Amino acid sequence: MRRFAAERARKIAGSLTRSFSSPSPLPVSHSASPIGAISSAGMSSSSSYPVTRDNINPNVIKCEYAVRGEIVIRAQRLQQELQEKPGSHPFDEILYCNIGNPQSLGQQPISFFREVLALCDHPSILDRDETHALFSADSIARAWQVLDQIPGRATGAYSHSQGIKGLRDTIAAGIAARDGFPANGDDIFLTDGASPAVHMMMQLLLRSEKDGILCPIPQYPLYSASIALHGGTLVPYYLDESTGWGLELSEVKKQLEDARSKGISVRALVVINPGNPTGQVLAEGNQREIVEFCKNEGLVLLADEVYQENIYVDDKKFNSFKKISRSMGYSEKDITLVSFQSVSKGYYGECGKRGGYMEVTGFSDDAKEQIYKVASVNLCSNISGQILASLVMSPPKEGDESFDSYCAERDGILSSLARRAKTLEDAFNNLEGVTCNKAEGAMYLFPRILLPQKAIEAARAGKVAPDAFYAQRLLDATGIVVVPGSGFGQVPGTWHFRCTILPQEDKIPAIVTRLQKFHEAFMAEYRD
Amino acid sequence: MRRFAAERARKIAGSLTRSFSSPSPLPVSHSASPIGAISSAGMSSSSSYPVTRDNINPNVIKCEYAVRGEIVIRAQRLQQELQEKPGSHPFDEILYCNIGNPQSLGQQPISFFREVLALCDHPSILDRDETHALFSADSIARAWQVLDQIPGRATGAYSHSQGIKGLRDTIAAGIAARDGFPANGDDIFLTDGASPAVHMMMQLLLRSEKDGILCPIPQYPLYSASIALHGGTLVPYYLDESTGWGLELSEVKKQLEDARSKGISVRALVVINPGNPTGQVLAEGNQREIVEFCKNEGLVLLADEVYQENIYVDDKKFNSFKKISRSMGYSEKDITLVSFQSVSKGYYGECGKRGGYMEVTGFSDDAKEQIYKVASVNLCSNISGQILASLVMSPPKEGDESFDSYCAERDGILSSLARRAKTLEDAFNNLEGVTCNKAEGAMYLFPRILLPQKAIEAARAGKVAPDAFYAQRLLDATGIVVVPGSGFGQVPGTWHFRCTILPQEDKIPAIVTRLQKFHEAFMAEYRD
Repeated sequence: MRRFAAERARKIAGSLTRSFSSPSPLPVSHSASPIGAISSAGMSSSSSYPVTRDNINPNVIKCEYAVRGEIVIRAQRLQQELQEKPGSHPFDEILYCNIGNPQSLGQQPISFFREVLALCDHPSILDRDETHALFSADSIARAWQVLDQIPGRATGAYSHSQGIKGLRDTIAAGIAARDGFPANGDDIFLTDGASPAVHMMMQLLLRSEKDGILCPIPQYPLYSASIALHGGTLVPYYLDESTGWGLELSEVKKQLEDARSKGISVRALVVINPGNPTGQVLAEGNQREIVEFCKNEGLVLLADEVYQENIYVDDKKFNSFKKISRSMGYSEKDITLVSFQSVSKGYYGECGKRGGYMEVTGFSDDAKEQIYKVASVNLCSNISGQILASLVMSPPKEGDESFDSYCAERDGILSSLARRAKTLEDAFNNLEGVTCNKAEGAMYLFPRILLPQKAIEAARAGKVAPDAFYAQRLLDATGIVVVPGSGFGQVPGTWHFRCTILPQEDKIPAIVTRLQKFHEAFMAEYRD
Repeated sequence: MRRFAAERARKIAGSLTRSFSSPSPLPVSHSASPIGAISSAGMSSSSSYPVTRDNINPNVIKCEYAVRGEIVIRAQRLQQELQEKPGSHPFDEILYCNIGNPQSLGQQPISFFREVLALCDHPSILDRDETHALFSADSIARAWQVLDQIPGRATGAYSHSQGIKGLRDTIAAGIAARDGFPANGDDIFLTDGASPAVHMMMQLLLRSEKDGILCPIPQYPLYSASIALHGGTLVPYYLDESTGWGLELSEVKKQLEDARSKGISVRALVVINPGNPTGQVLAEGNQREIVEFCKNEGLVLLADEVYQENIYVDDKKFNSFKKISRSMGYSEKDITLVSFQSVSKGYYGECGKRGGYMEVTGFSDDAKEQIYKVASVNLCSNISGQILASLVMSPPKEGDESFDSYCAERDGILSSLARRAKTLEDAFNNLEGVTCNKAEGAMYLFPRILLPQKAIEAARAGKVAPDAFYAQRLLDATGIVVVPGSGFGQVPGTWHFRCTILPQEDKIPAIVTRLQKFHEAFMAEYRD
């Protein structure tokens, strides 16, 4: 592990230099590595192995994914220590606020969805009397309906590589109902969560490092990781923290021109709405500008819309980019648009099911055939995830037996998330030197910390980024895991962290108290 | 679509030239494309779209996956015609013998596995009395056991990126029991089927087109597709049809040396055992030679062992390459080995669940950390697939309530597959000009056809490969879908097709009759 540690130190030092000296276009973060996953017994030297860090694909080395990076490795170590030696740390449990993984923090699944999944997994009980005692009538009816959409009712068979046609049609109907504009099941590609869909688009679009993708900074690091893996160039555009993480088109234009002047062929613009890690919800007018811009510049609009159900403020509303562009009179001849959706987010939060889709419009026939071909190499996405994706886009309706309980579960989760977002936002804003924009949507807060110079120097001495230093100290003192802003990208010289709003509501007061106590002590220690 | 058709014709013509003039190292196949998935309305010209076939990643264009290629597209068209106009073809149904997808052809899932999956999907019924009437006692106990292995019993949460630790430990115990040598849960990476695991290894190993992977020819085209997508070079070694698709080490050595003399850095050797599409089961002595060779040459041994449960002959037995190498006294310091396993094959055939794993041994620490990092970018594989992978590696034991029914289901499927393999093998060997090796294992037969010169000329005139021509004619006359050998690679000038052994047993006699009738007519038409 020595070589790895040295490499890491070098990299962190390098990133520090970049952050302090000049605007760094690429977000800075730290390698992920497994915890306790590798015994060093008999593996002390790398030289005897045919595959080492030195001779693997350099794009893999370049790729970074901070959400599961260093800080999580440290957290898992502390968790193990707590298990082995209770009382060894000043907290009882690790609170994973690093990742949007609601059910890991106690959120319960929506019953109706799980009933249907269970019945589709074991259809032979559908005809049994006892089943009616255990399952709602509409879940049984829906399971039959889903099974009838699957050729041979075979939930254990590979499906069409885009996903089961009937389920895609159900999703398209859900999109049409949401947007008020038609959608086509043939434009839907069902995927194992949204991540493989993003990878597919990057794989399709990126021919070399001379191809670029415009990404917001801060961004969800799947984008930087996928662009690195596929050998392209991330072209950053900065969101404006002072206007609530506003997306200023002038900034996007400037970065596009700058990239083009360097010979980069910019292929696409990524927009994350609601924002991750930033939580803003775009206004309709802003979305129209973006559509117009992509249309005029010949850019694919890659719309990450996985938080479409997570809106917490009354004055904002989710509008899909497809709805916006169709309402502007643009058809798929005018704009090339990919919308990503996932069962992992929303009020459902079914991360482990790996369901999702992309809706692909405005590609030439021959390009779309290539997307299908790449999908076919992986055969199909998992059928339970496909079914769940269809369910979240067509939940119980009024009159269905489950409707009331479904609404109660859904609204309970969403209103609780809104309260948690507000409480944590206020808590952050009450901390000395911390400012935090509202989480209008999504699952995160991204507070900015004005770190005292002495803290920055201490971080530098420890060869970590200042925000990573703060996050480590926070973890060590409180068990709370947040992700340093450097993993998402930030304006050089500013420091942030991402914290989910997902801890259960009854734990929030204690979290706030721990956070305040830690922060006061930290500032007292390092105040200039 | 005109441009695509022209492109395709050009490519097919090109591949024909290659096949006829000189040994072609790379398998030849045809692009897959969606059926009826794309309306041409408003999309007649590609020029107005920012993304077309001409400006996407050329590695995507190069990639081919014949198992879902042209012939399947034709089959799906015929199926639609049959639905819309029954009696419009000389058969009632399309028989998909192109893909190892058992449940699509009526194979029933193993009840115990599905019971556990259903209970894990909807754990709130585990405590209910009615559940005992619907589910076996050991499935309920196993569901509890699985849930207890999942942090917070949250089957809807992202897991550790390698998969849930307890499930990996269960799988490792299953491997150890199978092999008689220890296995470590930390070496297991759970994946959505085996395909993403293969992609991960290719992504890790391939730095440029100067990096090569030794692959058998014929091969399962996932390998050629993945190598193309990741920009590497497929280095072919030919299996010897005359010795039952024997893997001759002298051939592998020759091809390795040849590739090296061309400046290719060969990183790994792919071995598919039992073979796909070829069905052979490697002998232990042969496997030892392969291990020794990989060790001496510093090659990663990529062992595709997804058909490990599919053995149909008494004189052959599956041995994992890990068992072989450990029995030779080689530890993970001596040989770098990746074993792929999937829930899609075996007697379980759960293709739609997308479960699988790779067991990774003999990598340096720092390389393994990079594998973990790539896994972490995709968060985790689907939890149902993870659970199922653990179940297939730890099925019911003697004394469990389900044990007898489980054995009956398993043995019923495997013995039926063995009978079907033999019946179809005999049927092929009875056809004029056809020779077919035994399917000792896996799910396929790969008969060779000596096509009459007139048939070859007719194919050439129609701008299709001769084996594709035969497969098309077979489909049009009988509704039977097979994959032309050119999709897997074959010795230039020889023609084959791959046919699964998966149609239900009661349908086999009619299939054989249709096949014979078609073949006689075809030969009569084209006999020289």
